[in-house]
Amino acid sequence: MKKDTLCVYSGGMDSTVMLHLLKKNTALAVTFDYGSNHAAREIECAKINCEKLNIPHIIIPLSFMKQYFNSSLLQGADAIPEGHYEAENMKSTVVPFRNGIMLSIAIGLAESRGLQYVAIANHSGDHAIYPDCTKEFIDSMDCASMSGTYNKVKIVSPFNGLRKHNIAALGFSTLNVDFSKTWSCYKGGEVHCGKCGTCVERKEAFEKMGLIDPTIYEQ
Amino acid sequence: MKKDTLCVYSGGMDSTVMLHLLKKNTALAVTFDYGSNHAAREIECAKINCEKLNIPHIIIPLSFMKQYFNSSLLQGADAIPEGHYEAENMKSTVVPFRNGIMLSIAIGLAESRGLQYVAIANHSGDHAIYPDCTKEFIDSMDCASMSGTYNKVKIVSPFNGLRKHNIAALGFSTLNVDFSKTWSCYKGGEVHCGKCGTCVERKEAFEKMGLIDPTIYEQ
Repeated sequence: MKKDTLCVYSGGMDSTVMLHLLKKNTALAVTFDYGSNHAAREIECAKINCEKLNIPHIIIPLSFMKQYFNSSLLQGADAIPEGHYEAENMKSTVVPFRNGIMLSIAIGLAESRGLQYVAIANHSGDHAIYPDCTKEFIDSMDCASMSGTYNKVKIVSPFNGLRKHNIAALGFSTLNVDFSKTWSCYKGGEVHCGKCGTCVERKEAFEKMGLIDPTIYEQ
Repeated sequence: MKKDTLCVYSGGMDSTVMLHLLKKNTALAVTFDYGSNHAAREIECAKINCEKLNIPHIIIPLSFMKQYFNSSLLQGADAIPEGHYEAENMKSTVVPFRNGIMLSIAIGLAESRGLQYVAIANHSGDHAIYPDCTKEFIDSMDCASMSGTYNKVKIVSPFNGLRKHNIAALGFSTLNVDFSKTWSCYKGGEVHCGKCGTCVERKEAFEKMGLIDPTIYEQ
């Protein structure tokens, strides 16, 4: 197996499953700290999984995003709406073009290090509120990457056609992922709040597949 | 005229001409400091022109690029090759996917502030060594932006079909640009070195059109 892949890795459920799936090919995992409420929790989980899988890991600070971008994800935890993920009010958690920014930096890093692939764990459950998670967006970024690099760095998005519960099942049954070492909650407290959109979605993913949810929820 | 445009603005010749061209539409100019040898000189010029044109201006630090990216542009001035811009050895000055990274952040900022357009001053003279300056690359990034934002932020690249001497002529004859307040030299010394690829290109642009070059060169 060639170590020719850079994984965009948040420490959440989906990208942790992807990291386990691609571990034999992964030369580098990159976590972006854009100043969200839950950055510290995510990064803690990202470090644990990279160490466990013996994958080199770097954290790239993007502090300008907190300074200049509008998103409830970048404000105090009180600003995080509660309810179902796909509901209209969850739109406030969108960080404009976040995947575009993370992918572009990842592409530059891959080109810099002679790596051929950049992997990202977007999935079809994301698409409802995140325009930069759609297949159309990923395909366009892939064209930009292929035309904008010497090495024709390619974007791979293995979960493009899956939903979160499919990814959870893959992680559980085949890849032996320890989901207690993954973080979702946008509020970033001591434990998962259980009420924000991403907590609701996390719970549902386990429930739908009849899997044991190892997460400690406040409620 | 609507103030609906964000200009990616380095303080170099091309983007300074673009800023003058689009000044009535420009709500914000954004300079990226990715730790190059000539950053301080460029930023100084960028500030002067934004003040002169009364355009709000922010500088976004991308210090991780100096830390993690390979490019002679990000090393000491001694690493900058001399000679003609399009020559093979100038490839070492390429900062991998730099335009992708700058455009993505600019797109996110535009989306955050309700701006419709992101403008970039790439031109056809750049294409020889920079894959992320080609029309193909810009078109793909435009698709990614249109599909990855709610407001369908559009990329405009007014100089896509021009060469540097055409841009210089436009700046001189029509837009009254003071080119002494623009910076090109990759070495970033007190004055332009006159020998590196971008200095050679700068000189040629003025010469080809029979324009007075106001630049002070070391040689």
